[in-house]
Amino acid sequence: MLDLSFNDAIWHRINQKTKPLGALGQLEQVAHQLALIQSQGLQQAVEHIEIQQPTVLVFAGDHGIADEGVSIAPSAVTQQMVLNFLAGGAAINCFCRANNVAMKVIDTGILLPVDAQHPDFIVQRLGVRTENFANQPAMSLEQVEQGLDHGQSLVESVIDAGSNLVMFGEMGIANTSSAAALLASLSDLPVEECVGKGTGISDQQLEKKYQLVAKGVERSKGKGVKELLAEVGGYEIVQMVGAFLGAYRKRTPVLVDGFIVTVAAYVATLIEPECRDYMIFAHCSDESGHKKVLNLLEATPLLNLHLRLGEGTGAVLAVPLIKAAAEFYNNMASFAEAGVTV
Amino acid sequence: MLDLSFNDAIWHRINQKTKPLGALGQLEQVAHQLALIQSQGLQQAVEHIEIQQPTVLVFAGDHGIADEGVSIAPSAVTQQMVLNFLAGGAAINCFCRANNVAMKVIDTGILLPVDAQHPDFIVQRLGVRTENFANQPAMSLEQVEQGLDHGQSLVESVIDAGSNLVMFGEMGIANTSSAAALLASLSDLPVEECVGKGTGISDQQLEKKYQLVAKGVERSKGKGVKELLAEVGGYEIVQMVGAFLGAYRKRTPVLVDGFIVTVAAYVATLIEPECRDYMIFAHCSDESGHKKVLNLLEATPLLNLHLRLGEGTGAVLAVPLIKAAAEFYNNMASFAEAGVTV
Repeated sequence: MLDLSFNDAIWHRINQKTKPLGALGQLEQVAHQLALIQSQGLQQAVEHIEIQQPTVLVFAGDHGIADEGVSIAPSAVTQQMVLNFLAGGAAINCFCRANNVAMKVIDTGILLPVDAQHPDFIVQRLGVRTENFANQPAMSLEQVEQGLDHGQSLVESVIDAGSNLVMFGEMGIANTSSAAALLASLSDLPVEECVGKGTGISDQQLEKKYQLVAKGVERSKGKGVKELLAEVGGYEIVQMVGAFLGAYRKRTPVLVDGFIVTVAAYVATLIEPECRDYMIFAHCSDESGHKKVLNLLEATPLLNLHLRLGEGTGAVLAVPLIKAAAEFYNNMASFAEAGVTV
Repeated sequence: MLDLSFNDAIWHRINQKTKPLGALGQLEQVAHQLALIQSQGLQQAVEHIEIQQPTVLVFAGDHGIADEGVSIAPSAVTQQMVLNFLAGGAAINCFCRANNVAMKVIDTGILLPVDAQHPDFIVQRLGVRTENFANQPAMSLEQVEQGLDHGQSLVESVIDAGSNLVMFGEMGIANTSSAAALLASLSDLPVEECVGKGTGISDQQLEKKYQLVAKGVERSKGKGVKELLAEVGGYEIVQMVGAFLGAYRKRTPVLVDGFIVTVAAYVATLIEPECRDYMIFAHCSDESGHKKVLNLLEATPLLNLHLRLGEGTGAVLAVPLIKAAAEFYNNMASFAEAGVTV
């Protein structure tokens, strides 16, 4: 658990700023959390929150269950979108440019590999997409372990290279099916509440998605976390779980994106409950299971823009709010400094 | 009304971007609105949304009704906060720095004038704070006319100097009372739904605020818009109404801040309904009347961070979302460009 020795000192600093008590709402919560994190191990609370090289890692992976038609697009689109990321043409690229966020793209095991030499492209494939989890385990326990290691090592290296705020995004046709199956297996929620329309399937496809996800959930209920990841997880999801654990090891905050990333975050808290302290929740998407998993994490996200794209877009859009919270914590005048009557 | 000739062309451009239909939620609405505005009078829809020199004008004014104890602070604090703005120490300064927004501060008639030579300080006083509207009209009709002119001229000069996205903020002890009285007078809403706790008064003060606001509303119901502004308005509110009308004259979008600014926006639409087309709503604050007036304007704000500070803070915090919307409209690849299978 976070050392709360400086809890009162940090709130005092925030409350002395020239504004009514609590008037900056959720930004005060963000500033408090960041100041608490950055004060760990120090002799006093930080007076300056540092935000250095915010970086989003976009994990791409493919899913055997895509062949069942649970998505609007075929698995080949994952490869096409990876190429789009590397060419700078996707939504996530635009938002990274707009908000000065660095980005890396990781192939965790997409169906059609990409032959690209690109400084921000990282290949750590766990296989040639997962098996169809409606019929059999998506992957082996060994692959789960390897994926956790890959994700953890990668985020640690990014933090060692100078980033102190990380985000994870994902791309993978059919990965809402995998995330929904994980959520339903880990909670008391009925499958119908965990499964959504993804990027926009029909009611008929949705009905089929319920049934296929339910088959995976039936096999998975009651299993341990790693077994569960093997049953119904995805390569990109497993590596993101590892990345959350790596960020925790480095005591680094993670700005948490949409449904799939939030499910990975939840899974990470089941392995290491204390990593919850380092999570800031960026947005609530329109995917139906997202609100549910946010509730399990007792999280109140910053944005609610009706996004349903993934890629880390919601997290990157929230970066300016994090910087604004740091700026007011660092440089806003206190009542005494400004000569304002309390 | 906006010329909708390019409506379909703009949606087509947005829908061809490499994302599922509608997956960028409210950002798509923003991009559409901006592209429509910037395409007015052209031969084809713009392919590039320009955002130049976003500027917030913070209008400060004082209110006679403050003497009744409807606020947590005395009128002297308005002056202290104006000095804080000019020294760069307030929340709005921090957010302007973080988001690269220019700022000007306007004295519209605060109780204690400020003797400051500052390039971004503008004095256009309508008086020495308003009269107490619980007992008598807050100002004369001549003051209303002058205030509308001042606001309009100022925003036009800011736009002429190169800004094409403007925001208005306010500072004025007791100005939620004035805004609530305007809202209750202009709608069928009971006073209790328009009046809130402002920056944090007690339940007892709130009860008193209901009664005082009701006295002004009783006198104002059924009057014309300008008479109403004279009865229960504020100098800063009147100038903001003029500023909305000026932005409309210049066909320039306004990013609309919190409760008081939104009431000014609503009043402006009653004078010139078409100015609604140029409004983008930045946030929903915690002040109870804000949701109500947003409903009257059929507005869905971008942010809901539980702010209740004013100053234009919510609007300035939303600027990066506007820039992100422009960036995706301008530079995100289409399916054809990226070779992504539709």
